[in-house]
Amino acid sequence: MTYQIAIIGASGYTGAELIRLIAEHPSMKIKHLIANSKAGQSMDQVFPHLRHLELPDLVTVAEVDFLAVDLAFCALPHKTSQEVISALPKSLKIVDLSADFRLRNAADYEKWYGNPHVAAKEQAEAVYGLSEFYREEIRAARLVAGTGCNAATGQYILRPLIKAEVIDLDQVILDLKCAVSGAGRALKENLLHAELSEGYHAYAVGGTHRHLGEFDQEFSAVAGRPVRIQFTPHLIPANRGILATGYVMGDPEIVYKTLCEAYAQEPFIHVLPFGQTPSTHHVRGSNLCHIGVAGDRIPGRSIVIGALDNLTKGSSGQALQNANLMLGLPETTGLTMAPLYP
Amino acid sequence: MTYQIAIIGASGYTGAELIRLIAEHPSMKIKHLIANSKAGQSMDQVFPHLRHLELPDLVTVAEVDFLAVDLAFCALPHKTSQEVISALPKSLKIVDLSADFRLRNAADYEKWYGNPHVAAKEQAEAVYGLSEFYREEIRAARLVAGTGCNAATGQYILRPLIKAEVIDLDQVILDLKCAVSGAGRALKENLLHAELSEGYHAYAVGGTHRHLGEFDQEFSAVAGRPVRIQFTPHLIPANRGILATGYVMGDPEIVYKTLCEAYAQEPFIHVLPFGQTPSTHHVRGSNLCHIGVAGDRIPGRSIVIGALDNLTKGSSGQALQNANLMLGLPETTGLTMAPLYP
Amino acid sequence: MTYQIAIIGASGYTGAELIRLIAEHPSMKIKHLIANSKAGQSMDQVFPHLRHLELPDLVTVAEVDFLAVDLAFCALPHKTSQEVISALPKSLKIVDLSADFRLRNAADYEKWYGNPHVAAKEQAEAVYGLSEFYREEIRAARLVAGTGCNAATGQYILRPLIKAEVIDLDQVILDLKCAVSGAGRALKENLLHAELSEGYHAYAVGGTHRHLGEFDQEFSAVAGRPVRIQFTPHLIPANRGILATGYVMGDPEIVYKTLCEAYAQEPFIHVLPFGQTPSTHHVRGSNLCHIGVAGDRIPGRSIVIGALDNLTKGSSGQALQNANLMLGLPETTGLTMAPLYP
Amino acid sequence: MTYQIAIIGASGYTGAELIRLIAEHPSMKIKHLIANSKAGQSMDQVFPHLRHLELPDLVTVAEVDFLAVDLAFCALPHKTSQEVISALPKSLKIVDLSADFRLRNAADYEKWYGNPHVAAKEQAEAVYGLSEFYREEIRAARLVAGTGCNAATGQYILRPLIKAEVIDLDQVILDLKCAVSGAGRALKENLLHAELSEGYHAYAVGGTHRHLGEFDQEFSAVAGRPVRIQFTPHLIPANRGILATGYVMGDPEIVYKTLCEAYAQEPFIHVLPFGQTPSTHHVRGSNLCHIGVAGDRIPGRSIVIGALDNLTKGSSGQALQNANLMLGLPETTGLTMAPLYP
Repeated sequence: MTYQIAIIGASGYTGAELIRLIAEHPSMKIKHLIANSKAGQSMDQVFPHLRHLELPDLVTVAEVDFLAVDLAFCALPHKTSQEVISALPKSLKIVDLSADFRLRNAADYEKWYGNPHVAAKEQAEAVYGLSEFYREEIRAARLVAGTGCNAATGQYILRPLIKAEVIDLDQVILDLKCAVSGAGRALKENLLHAELSEGYHAYAVGGTHRHLGEFDQEFSAVAGRPVRIQFTPHLIPANRGILATGYVMGDPEIVYKTLCEAYAQEPFIHVLPFGQTPSTHHVRGSNLCHIGVAGDRIPGRSIVIGALDNLTKGSSGQALQNANLMLGLPETTGLTMAPLYP
Repeated sequence: MTYQIAIIGASGYTGAELIRLIAEHPSMKIKHLIANSKAGQSMDQVFPHLRHLELPDLVTVAEVDFLAVDLAFCALPHKTSQEVISALPKSLKIVDLSADFRLRNAADYEKWYGNPHVAAKEQAEAVYGLSEFYREEIRAARLVAGTGCNAATGQYILRPLIKAEVIDLDQVILDLKCAVSGAGRALKENLLHAELSEGYHAYAVGGTHRHLGEFDQEFSAVAGRPVRIQFTPHLIPANRGILATGYVMGDPEIVYKTLCEAYAQEPFIHVLPFGQTPSTHHVRGSNLCHIGVAGDRIPGRSIVIGALDNLTKGSSGQALQNANLMLGLPETTGLTMAPLYP
Repeated sequence: MTYQIAIIGASGYTGAELIRLIAEHPSMKIKHLIANSKAGQSMDQVFPHLRHLELPDLVTVAEVDFLAVDLAFCALPHKTSQEVISALPKSLKIVDLSADFRLRNAADYEKWYGNPHVAAKEQAEAVYGLSEFYREEIRAARLVAGTGCNAATGQYILRPLIKAEVIDLDQVILDLKCAVSGAGRALKENLLHAELSEGYHAYAVGGTHRHLGEFDQEFSAVAGRPVRIQFTPHLIPANRGILATGYVMGDPEIVYKTLCEAYAQEPFIHVLPFGQTPSTHHVRGSNLCHIGVAGDRIPGRSIVIGALDNLTKGSSGQALQNANLMLGLPETTGLTMAPLYP
Repeated sequence: MTYQIAIIGASGYTGAELIRLIAEHPSMKIKHLIANSKAGQSMDQVFPHLRHLELPDLVTVAEVDFLAVDLAFCALPHKTSQEVISALPKSLKIVDLSADFRLRNAADYEKWYGNPHVAAKEQAEAVYGLSEFYREEIRAARLVAGTGCNAATGQYILRPLIKAEVIDLDQVILDLKCAVSGAGRALKENLLHAELSEGYHAYAVGGTHRHLGEFDQEFSAVAGRPVRIQFTPHLIPANRGILATGYVMGDPEIVYKTLCEAYAQEPFIHVLPFGQTPSTHHVRGSNLCHIGVAGDRIPGRSIVIGALDNLTKGSSGQALQNANLMLGLPETTGLTMAPLYP
């Protein structure tokens, strides 16, 4: 069987990444590509690297009959996403890539994103889309909220440790290095090649990055008590990749064993031999996450490092993984491509 | 049916690219990975980005029973390649990625590569592996010689024009810009990040680049008389990609029409709308070649530009395309992945 | 004596580069920094890398008493530049970095830039600012028009050859590779890091780049008859640098000798040993231009390659060189810094 | 007065950076350039970007009469450096850029560097070259040991806080991001452009990086009791720059005030407005260090970030600053150039 797919917000990087992946998916067909601001254009005008594919032209959301669609990916900016999704048929399966349905609590959403939530009903039914930890809920879900790319990376290295209670929950520091495509295709001065190349710096310092809302929600739920970590992201002159360096108080061997066991059966999460460190270059373009663990010279302290591709495992690949689950397909379908190296 | 594949020279970039592609190929299985200097190592030690794949450890060429292999890719340096290949079973199908069997004439080989050819018999039987122009010969071949990555790019933009006699054969200038992976994984000072990043320059100026041997052979054969073009390569601070800018004397509309017709049925070669120019970024990681044509302000002059990924269409992807032909498989099998962008 | 300097258009890259250079100049002091759109801001807000300098805040052009200024650099966009300059005191020495006064003929200006010229008087008095070739005129000038960065590079490698009549004037091809800062700090999609990194491509193909207006004017004047060259620029993933590869019909030894003699006394233009090729990395951040010459394998053809930094020798460094001449200072004052490598 | 300078180890990046700086220094003249392995070559062969300078050819150390030299910079690898320096005249002023004389205790040296120290006398007299904190000792010194580039960055952000006792000394985490030139011009696979570009990763994890020897020595001396910090370096795809992110337990306002006061009179160390973060791009090519402070959302925790250029303030610029002190020259002579941006 072939499922009919719509992509809403097809003119951004996560939209293009979805098209790249679905083009090779044996059970999905892209029926509609939606981008209100560029409706009427063909995809090769917006993304010349997709010109070899037979793709529908971009249309507005109003032009689409969603009842003939099996599943829609929504890759719109937050706030817009909830407005569009709340107007779609209630029977339509949706994977949302925005931040709009990640936080279960409306007050938390308003606190981190600055605007009140206008799709309370959808927010209530949405399932958090970190595939490896919400697998059964995602299988049964109608609406799945993809995690933030930074939030995913941080959770992959920390969640099993919090759940197993092998680290001090009040002493977790996450120093994250992310590539520029995480900021999207927006015209901002700091994203220009001339500004970014040869430069790197921290941003959203002091615990102001919005993905902290996800960390707080998820880590507290796992721990059964409030957990607040320290999190500082840095912008790195590269196009794809997130590297998260976690500093935790916990025995390195136990930390390592806990992560190995947690991910032993996971097809996409690979824990490296003890002491080895992952590189963003080694996962680029794939749905893989590499995790490395080392012990510090100070006893009782561990360094845990995770690497993934923000556009794939951190966003569009994760979204496709969730769609596979929602449609009853094997979870890894269309996601087994190896990284592009060099 | 699943074909058993051996890759000789698996520790270089073209070897790694072959593994990336074959891992997704439905009718091929990697049975042996051969790298004499790194025999005994596992692939994740040599290329950590391949650690998720179940791959055999690296072995020496002497350890392999080639009679149980259906096809071997040979990704060794030139000179070594001919020595190894001449010792393999005469029944084994081989795609060689080196320069050793590209030139049909032994004297030409010695002139451009500086050493006498020691596998005259194999040189005589080898078929030149530019898939789109030697398709039938490749189907019937036992030994196929992959083209040089620069030579392939130049031929894609010029061959149809030479054959159709729509340009002045004595006034062809090819200004080529290639990325660094074309030089391989060799430890050379000029390939260091600190040397190359932010810098670009010409090399092998004055008609000394070895791929001119291929241009001379092929263009002269197509034209039926000696053709010598001007060719200057430049090294660009990027990892993958070749951009070839051809300056020709010929009517732009006729040039454009000639190329459109030549590639109308080709799955991997795409001629852009007239006046548009290709970018290496738009073909990265794919087996695609994009071609653009524009007319100069000076009447009767055309600019023809081709872009491809040197490691894929320029080398390992082309090799797999040829292997598909040799094994009677659909030519595009395992090669339909879209480019990685951004 | 210390000259009081104003920089109009101080919030762009060429403005910042002027500040970098003048900060070390022993006889100049920056009195006013002007940027209408950012007036009221301090320079460390606009360019944090200049925060260690004691600089005046940005003001509007209306706030400045230009009678107390000895020389003004104008780094505004073309069209705006002529409007601003025509309203400045007629006694003020000005070095303009825009395109507005480069073309002596008003019709040429309108043809290449699409708008009629509104400062005919200033256009008539302006001197073309290619320092090495208009030295005496610049010394006597009130208004100097800085050359385009691409136009400067092309002229450095070709002008002496045209003047000496050692090449075929109807067969000149210039393939140019420029870095991204040449496009300024504008918010354009194709200048984003994610779009440009790992990608390179031609643009303004077919003889449509505006710097052709300068080439036509200057080369024709030197030759004493109309000269039209072929010129194709390419955008390269680097921040600074222009590499111009010229293909000419002329004897390599004569070409080389002509260039060596032309630049024997020039402090900033260096001709490399015959057969060596320049790199943009070797001139970055300096006011130097490196030139290399090689003979092609086809007799009677030469390849001439020039490299300079578009923001320094191609723009702000050249402007300071001209200002030194206009103020009677030694020409190299403040311009002797070595390139930054790596 | 002009001082006669020798540079031992002139063929590496720190040697080239010294030449770049000294070429503009009004009171120094490069008399000898020494590089045993490349003796006989001219500098433009080794570093083409220096071809415009009149420089002596490279010679061996044995060829130089050091009695006619006022001060020597030694930019050799550690271990070699102590062997060469111990054989130089005892009256010669020396700034060593290697690690050989940074650690005052011979056992510490052997522990971190793996070989016994063979120049105990020189080790005993050497002064630690962190200019801002050893100014008077450096003025009186004959032999100064330049700090490690990572060690310098970490000390700039942490030393005043340790001295003022405003942070918890047992809870300091330093997450450092360094560019590739810090690894020198060595031919190592992981320094190739194709390996590094688009990739970043941690290395020397777990407290194994040698610069920890310096941190331990200096921080313990400042605190008057043993201090051991956590330190994890990461390699970033850029050529120049170190960004050090320090996580400390201490009140943000007090931390900020302490740093502001410590550096209020320092010409090269700039503390940004509270909450702003530095970028490596903003100090590139300069002798500046930018420091930013922010408070975390968790009360009582501060984030302190420092940025400098590893080749300038982290190495050769610092060395020249020390040489100025040793020769009685104004400390900032030859070091006031602004950063190169973009």
